Amino acid sequence: MDFKLTDEQELIVDSYRDYMESENWEAYFAECDEKHEYPLRWVRGLCELGFDLIMLPESHGGLGLEQPAVTMMAVYEVLGRYGAPTYVLYQLPGFETIIREGTEEQIEAVLSTLGTGEQIWNSACTEPGAGSDVAALQTTYKRENGKIYLNGTKTFITSSAGVKYLVIMAKNADDPEMFTEFFLDMSKPGVSLSPLHKLGLRMDSCCEVYMDNVELEEKDIFGKEGNGFSRGINDFNFERWLVGCSDYGMSIAVYEDACRHANQRIAFGKPIGRQQLNQLKVAEMAIKLKNMKNMLYETAWEADNNDGKFDPGAAAMCKYYCANSAFSVVDDGMQILAGVAVAGEHRAQRIWRDLRVDRVSGGTDEMMILTASKFELKKYRD
Amino acid sequence: MDFKLTDEQELIVDSYRDYMESENWEAYFAECDEKHEYPLRWVRGLCELGFDLIMLPESHGGLGLEQPAVTMMAVYEVLGRYGAPTYVLYQLPGFETIIREGTEEQIEAVLSTLGTGEQIWNSACTEPGAGSDVAALQTTYKRENGKIYLNGTKTFITSSAGVKYLVIMAKNADDPEMFTEFFLDMSKPGVSLSPLHKLGLRMDSCCEVYMDNVELEEKDIFGKEGNGFSRGINDFNFERWLVGCSDYGMSIAVYEDACRHANQRIAFGKPIGRQQLNQLKVAEMAIKLKNMKNMLYETAWEADNNDGKFDPGAAAMCKYYCANSAFSVVDDGMQILAGVAVAGEHRAQRIWRDLRVDRVSGGTDEMMILTASKFELKKYRD
Amino acid sequence: MDFKLTDEQELIVDSYRDYMESENWEAYFAECDEKHEYPLRWVRGLCELGFDLIMLPESHGGLGLEQPAVTMMAVYEVLGRYGAPTYVLYQLPGFETIIREGTEEQIEAVLSTLGTGEQIWNSACTEPGAGSDVAALQTTYKRENGKIYLNGTKTFITSSAGVKYLVIMAKNADDPEMFTEFFLDMSKPGVSLSPLHKLGLRMDSCCEVYMDNVELEEKDIFGKEGNGFSRGINDFNFERWLVGCSDYGMSIAVYEDACRHANQRIAFGKPIGRQQLNQLKVAEMAIKLKNMKNMLYETAWEADNNDGKFDPGAAAMCKYYCANSAFSVVDDGMQILAGVAVAGEHRAQRIWRDLRVDRVSGGTDEMMILTASKFELKKYRD
Amino acid sequence: MDFKLTDEQELIVDSYRDYMESENWEAYFAECDEKHEYPLRWVRGLCELGFDLIMLPESHGGLGLEQPAVTMMAVYEVLGRYGAPTYVLYQLPGFETIIREGTEEQIEAVLSTLGTGEQIWNSACTEPGAGSDVAALQTTYKRENGKIYLNGTKTFITSSAGVKYLVIMAKNADDPEMFTEFFLDMSKPGVSLSPLHKLGLRMDSCCEVYMDNVELEEKDIFGKEGNGFSRGINDFNFERWLVGCSDYGMSIAVYEDACRHANQRIAFGKPIGRQQLNQLKVAEMAIKLKNMKNMLYETAWEADNNDGKFDPGAAAMCKYYCANSAFSVVDDGMQILAGVAVAGEHRAQRIWRDLRVDRVSGGTDEMMILTASKFELKKYRD
Repeated sequence: MDFKLTDEQELIVDSYRDYMESENWEAYFAECDEKHEYPLRWVRGLCELGFDLIMLPESHGGLGLEQPAVTMMAVYEVLGRYGAPTYVLYQLPGFETIIREGTEEQIEAVLSTLGTGEQIWNSACTEPGAGSDVAALQTTYKRENGKIYLNGTKTFITSSAGVKYLVIMAKNADDPEMFTEFFLDMSKPGVSLSPLHKLGLRMDSCCEVYMDNVELEEKDIFGKEGNGFSRGINDFNFERWLVGCSDYGMSIAVYEDACRHANQRIAFGKPIGRQQLNQLKVAEMAIKLKNMKNMLYETAWEADNNDGKFDPGAAAMCKYYCANSAFSVVDDGMQILAGVAVAGEHRAQRIWRDLRVDRVSGGTDEMMILTASKFELKKYRD
Repeated sequence: MDFKLTDEQELIVDSYRDYMESENWEAYFAECDEKHEYPLRWVRGLCELGFDLIMLPESHGGLGLEQPAVTMMAVYEVLGRYGAPTYVLYQLPGFETIIREGTEEQIEAVLSTLGTGEQIWNSACTEPGAGSDVAALQTTYKRENGKIYLNGTKTFITSSAGVKYLVIMAKNADDPEMFTEFFLDMSKPGVSLSPLHKLGLRMDSCCEVYMDNVELEEKDIFGKEGNGFSRGINDFNFERWLVGCSDYGMSIAVYEDACRHANQRIAFGKPIGRQQLNQLKVAEMAIKLKNMKNMLYETAWEADNNDGKFDPGAAAMCKYYCANSAFSVVDDGMQILAGVAVAGEHRAQRIWRDLRVDRVSGGTDEMMILTASKFELKKYRD
Repeated sequence: MDFKLTDEQELIVDSYRDYMESENWEAYFAECDEKHEYPLRWVRGLCELGFDLIMLPESHGGLGLEQPAVTMMAVYEVLGRYGAPTYVLYQLPGFETIIREGTEEQIEAVLSTLGTGEQIWNSACTEPGAGSDVAALQTTYKRENGKIYLNGTKTFITSSAGVKYLVIMAKNADDPEMFTEFFLDMSKPGVSLSPLHKLGLRMDSCCEVYMDNVELEEKDIFGKEGNGFSRGINDFNFERWLVGCSDYGMSIAVYEDACRHANQRIAFGKPIGRQQLNQLKVAEMAIKLKNMKNMLYETAWEADNNDGKFDPGAAAMCKYYCANSAFSVVDDGMQILAGVAVAGEHRAQRIWRDLRVDRVSGGTDEMMILTASKFELKKYRD
Repeated sequence: MDFKLTDEQELIVDSYRDYMESENWEAYFAECDEKHEYPLRWVRGLCELGFDLIMLPESHGGLGLEQPAVTMMAVYEVLGRYGAPTYVLYQLPGFETIIREGTEEQIEAVLSTLGTGEQIWNSACTEPGAGSDVAALQTTYKRENGKIYLNGTKTFITSSAGVKYLVIMAKNADDPEMFTEFFLDMSKPGVSLSPLHKLGLRMDSCCEVYMDNVELEEKDIFGKEGNGFSRGINDFNFERWLVGCSDYGMSIAVYEDACRHANQRIAFGKPIGRQQLNQLKVAEMAIKLKNMKNMLYETAWEADNNDGKFDPGAAAMCKYYCANSAFSVVDDGMQILAGVAVAGEHRAQRIWRDLRVDRVSGGTDEMMILTASKFELKKYRD
């Protein structure tokens, strides 16, 4: 066993640490959050350090690291420690699907943005009447006169106001058992958006997406027709793990703020960190951070040893445990920071709101519980 | 034993229920919250129903009810059920202190606003370097040339941007053991405010208050000189209980929203209320609501049977248990409401933020724990 | 509202308090628990005070109290405070079913033991392959030659080694949809027992009951043939509430032991009750006790105002909340008592084991959650 | 990073797995527990496999493994998986202290039992009036006529009925600031024992130890005179970690029992493992097991990379988190096993009692919290 990063990994982490130390990014994040803006300038800097190449296959220009997932986690960890909104990044390591499923044209469209930090694509499944229950989807596609027409509404679509392309799940109007995805150019006629008022994660957009008779070509199909549901399986697992990395990382920032405050703030003649009720919080927070860290690295290490495939049970645990534990860490941190956190400009407030959203978005806690337990119980079936 | 309201109390509750049903107040609350504005129009309506007379002594025009505290709780309960921001009301039942301690002029100043719904006064103790540790206060008063000069900074002062008067705790610059309160007219030269960015409770203001050589007269002393700390004891207990009432009430609104949603929202072919993970939440929420209700009514009933004096241990429990349980109820409710709650206009989002603040403001959870346990352990001392 | 007992109720409570003070019952309880014996001498004394008449209809010799359920709760509370194993009592207030459903002979058989403290009857439903899922029961009855023959196995049957009669649920061997109960004299040939090794509740027996072609008459049917499942509904609700009363009561004993210990035990130069980690426990314990008390009294009061019928949702909450909260109180108490509790003769150890069983027996936590939420959600259905 | 054992470590684990599979040890454990007997036959078998050589310095005959602590954890894990009472083993890896501090005679006395599985020594500090607060100890030693006389009482002394030697902490009767340890031969006149009624861990003894003018020689001093408190520091950290390993391991057994039961037990027409309330428990249990595993291995790995020294903060976290999480896992497991666990012969019952004791013995939860937080906060001091 070995619980430490390699020297090469440490060097990579150092470069991101230097970047985070290079200016007062917190002020920039606060401003972007206030304005509900994507922090493009910060992301571009990350991409200049090679962020979007970490998990990219070497064949397409990736870094060819031995442990890309472990390395990605290490980067999320150091970014989060500085309070960075790593949740805006989650498409940048996720080109695997595009490369595997996309046409050459689609791949080119996506990879051409490498290094720019721009949001480029996302996939859209959820509808007003169908969350986890994908079989209830109402968006349809219909062939007519050699064209394909998309109709329907998607909701809670992350990044939808920023991306150029959305991969849309739709069912065949003439065969309701057949689900297919489309690589939708958001500039097409018939596509419109309505932004949602999100509690957190405000540096990323979240909209309802309306498709009113959007005209597509056959070449806009993404992957194989009828293959809609099986396409995203490993992506889901990967994304769930990544949400865990992001949540864990951001909670470190508030933990460290709270510990410093506990040492410095004097009440009743001694630092509040010497009050047992605060010591209890610190111990609980530290334990959760240690657990999250190990769980996320272990899951990454398993994926790195399994052709990049993330274990579905482990990924579900990562999302469930980390979204909840990170929230709890930040909530405890706010209690230590007290007035400063609930009635000030402190980043704890922002991160606390962000983390709450992650217990719902990207698969609810409840879906994670069911997935994690399903795979656990399977191990004990004769 | 008897767990129901009297007919008279039910009639009073009915009048508030009718008022809440008389228009779509939620839209108004949402707007006030967005704009950080005091919901004056709504409060005025409450006062027209006699809200600010419920706990007022009959000698000063109060209603002379047999169980004023129980009645007040019943009103908070029905207002909260409609999602009303009852936290803005907490000065309106609190004139007992003014009447007991104030000069005739001070009493007149405060009571003249009865029925208007205006914010009129509050007290200010907390300072940047002193929260619960009041002995560390730095604000001073000094007599010079027959005048009194106040200097210092108060922080996290609720309602401070709206009230005409603040009762300011200060220590004698010439005798640092002597703490005295002053009835400060906020329009005096030398008083200034700086609003704080609060996570919740946004329909009430919260500011830092700066006093730069504010000139006062002897008649502006509030209560007896040197009596600063003993003045507010029963008020504290009353306020803690009242925070409990407010928190409990608002959580009912989200609970009922969530239950309705659980019955209506279909996924996987049945209402999500038939999923055990949601049923667990409903059971836990219902238990917490029942517990809060009983605890608050019992504490009110004890006070009504004790000349209006609230038991300090019970009051601390009310604040601690209700702030946390109400938060937990709303958090669970949001999880049931899911996307609707975290990415929509739903009031759950607002109430959730509001409740978080109450675990810090008005005495932190930690102070409540210490107070509650102190009074409990006392019972078992020989 | 009124949260106090009447003078009459207080007098009743006093008589039980005097009884508990009349000798060192704890030594007797410890011995009975060690030997797995029913504490007959103690129960007989209770019955001499009229314990088994509290809830008995006046027509059959009951006390004719105005609030029998509230009074019963008050008695459980005072007994529990002295660490009494009230769980052995649960049949004594439960003659309502016998009187309603039984033949004259059956009623006489049961009521003839009034005042003796003897265990007289219980009902038996659970089987090795069927717990909450009663439709899966395998015990059958079959008519042959004018007789009825019972065959099958019941398990986890409380009090089964002590009672003279068991009401046995069985299905008609010739009509598997028909479930009927039988008033089984345990001395009949073909009945045998095998005691189970129970974690707690050891002053009451718990056995597997085997029925091997037990010959019965038509008159041994209990209630109406085919009415097996509807018979026990209100009884279930009553019993669930009663388990709550018992659990709550016993936890008071450990709470008070822990508080006294916290005041007396000195470590690091001060009572351990002045350590915040212990103060936190005391506050949490006190809150749970207050909540349990109010919930149980409120549910009793509702039943007393509803012809003795217990609300199913409230009863389920009582069992679930109290079994878990009482356990948690005792667990916290043990942590304060520390070595004394885990490596000594302290009653906390016994009560802690007892309470764990109650989260399973008499309806698991899980069944209570489903029942409680079902009745809650019903309120919000259009 | 690397989360797997080496091939050599796997081979070692395999040998212990084969040993556990070699007979139905559970029956033996149940019998030993019932009789409160040390499971000597089982321990001897472990020692034949080299168990007591794993952490022994090579110079004294140890195995010279590269990662002794990691290996030890792997062995505890596999033993625990079979429900083995690993808590009886904790002296066998702990000879480091004897070798460092002991005289040649003392070392020889202890090491002569290697391979036998016998309990040989333990240390005794706690007294009736002094638990964690060691400065309050009352046991004294006094020199008279060239001899040393020990007087006092130790309590909650694990293994005390089984060992040949106890290392006794005592203070100099003539210099109450001086604390010294003695290597006490338990067969000396004046030593007597009184067994304590322990809730769990019953295969190991636990007694009060009385020393009434026990006559010792100078050579019976253990370590340097006056060095009593500094002696055991690293030992404490090591032992805390080891308790974590034991608690974690035993909880695996119940987890796996519960998962198998959840798959096999049918209710309402399907395995109970398909009820969401059970799935929730499985997910929570699996997460805790994963966290414990990683925390314990990481702490072991750090010690293996630090000359065998265990980090005090990490060790405190291991004990606190694992004692509580393992208990929670087993408690959840019992709830899934239901009647089988609370009223049967199932090992869950035994392990559940065992784990409760570990939240007190070997340093209470509360001491662990204070230690863990102290070392955490230190990291954030300027």
